[in-house]
Amino acid sequence: MADNNDFEARIRDSFAKQSIMATIGAEISAVRLGEVEIVLPFSDKILQQHGFIHAGAVATIADSACGYAGLTMMPRDAAVLTTEFKINLLSPAKGDRLRAVGRVIRNGKSLVVTLGEVFAETGGASKQVALITASMMVVATGTGLRD
Amino acid sequence: MADNNDFEARIRDSFAKQSIMATIGAEISAVRLGEVEIVLPFSDKILQQHGFIHAGAVATIADSACGYAGLTMMPRDAAVLTTEFKINLLSPAKGDRLRAVGRVIRNGKSLVVTLGEVFAETGGASKQVALITASMMVVATGTGLRD
Amino acid sequence: MADNNDFEARIRDSFAKQSIMATIGAEISAVRLGEVEIVLPFSDKILQQHGFIHAGAVATIADSACGYAGLTMMPRDAAVLTTEFKINLLSPAKGDRLRAVGRVIRNGKSLVVTLGEVFAETGGASKQVALITASMMVVATGTGLRD
Amino acid sequence: MADNNDFEARIRDSFAKQSIMATIGAEISAVRLGEVEIVLPFSDKILQQHGFIHAGAVATIADSACGYAGLTMMPRDAAVLTTEFKINLLSPAKGDRLRAVGRVIRNGKSLVVTLGEVFAETGGASKQVALITASMMVVATGTGLRD
Repeated sequence: MADNNDFEARIRDSFAKQSIMATIGAEISAVRLGEVEIVLPFSDKILQQHGFIHAGAVATIADSACGYAGLTMMPRDAAVLTTEFKINLLSPAKGDRLRAVGRVIRNGKSLVVTLGEVFAETGGASKQVALITASMMVVATGTGLRD
Repeated sequence: MADNNDFEARIRDSFAKQSIMATIGAEISAVRLGEVEIVLPFSDKILQQHGFIHAGAVATIADSACGYAGLTMMPRDAAVLTTEFKINLLSPAKGDRLRAVGRVIRNGKSLVVTLGEVFAETGGASKQVALITASMMVVATGTGLRD
Repeated sequence: MADNNDFEARIRDSFAKQSIMATIGAEISAVRLGEVEIVLPFSDKILQQHGFIHAGAVATIADSACGYAGLTMMPRDAAVLTTEFKINLLSPAKGDRLRAVGRVIRNGKSLVVTLGEVFAETGGASKQVALITASMMVVATGTGLRD
Repeated sequence: MADNNDFEARIRDSFAKQSIMATIGAEISAVRLGEVEIVLPFSDKILQQHGFIHAGAVATIADSACGYAGLTMMPRDAAVLTTEFKINLLSPAKGDRLRAVGRVIRNGKSLVVTLGEVFAETGGASKQVALITASMMVVATGTGLRD
């Protein structure tokens, strides 16, 4: 991992390029080796028809938390692309904000498997609202992709 | 289905309440019994770090296309909630716009199973970029939820 | 849970009716409230073409471990049916035996969401080879189904 | 594809090595470029507690049908490994026999994405009982794996 000492800066720089995060109001809140957290405050711009946060917004932060958890462990000359994810929605996504935590379960050479949890936080209370598993492809940057 | 003759208006009214759709720029483009289409023009507000449309935005329109496909076949006194979906991302999501088509595979009493495809359209060309399967719960509106 | 004090006997009785378990050689090894373990010794009857245990056999014990974890928490007059599962295969399934651990993540009235892990055990070593998430439907036994 | 003209023999030879198929009674019934079918007659050796065919047996034939559909399109010096699949169980698996049809949706260099359907056939009638999506890794045979 000698070539990846600056992983936190790497992930934060890449996250800043994800324009959808500014659009929905999400921010990266923690970067650890193999684990990344993203928070999404409740806002009336990201809802579904019943006034809950749309499953797609939940999936957006869960997918990025998992992808960046994977990227923390990838070689410096690799980029990350999601190949698939599955999300179970456990309870309606409502509250003050969502917090997605993604972490690496299997750090393979060509595929990284991740698990993520999304919590709805209201005041001091926290409730899990989603569970995601995602596969991330390690893409050689010779392809032109970066981080 | 006698109580569901107005399903197109029902779906369009509900879609109009999904604020996330206006936020990302998505519009509903077709409503048929058991099948719904949503289009999402490319814009620089919904991207990931490589300049492709974020997997979360792809999932957002795919999930809603599937959910509304399910709702076209649900009784008038039921609402729809996604319980889970899985999406395979087949190619980078880029082009003029995305088109998501969701349709009902199994119309159960309490769960509706759907399949969706997302295409990237550029000029006259179309390429499939994602495949989704999703489970939709039929929620009695006695719960307070509607459509 | 007053009507479910005998959950261990209930799960073991139901497991004994799953003829596929005897066919592949699997046994139930632990039953706790919300968590069930199943072991599957390596045998040359359950392999795929490279000599690893077939993903379908891995899925069989993972699905049952998750389903029975769910059933430990269901009312006495309910049966359990899998509505969907997704499994990530992390490493080839080889070793002395597999051990699947399923547990309840969300105990809903009509759907129970579970998470399972499968480990390959060789001598004293253990390595995770699969990760599953599964949805279990709570079926009223008025349907004729039981446990 | 010049190096893959004998794909049918290749798939049938590999299938014959999957000992689990003989154990559960499954046979390969059709091999076409990008599409493979497997049939599984009902038997009392592969059931769950309600007398339906176990979801794990359904998944076993669905996974192999998808994997071999992928292998029909892989170079002669590649082997196939499932990295993940998700299955939706649409109706109880009962009848005279199951028929799983797997086909390639996206034939990538390192990952092949497949879609499969499983039907329960009884007399002349056929009913879809499961829907699967699966990712297959293209493994270089320099690894020692073959087909």
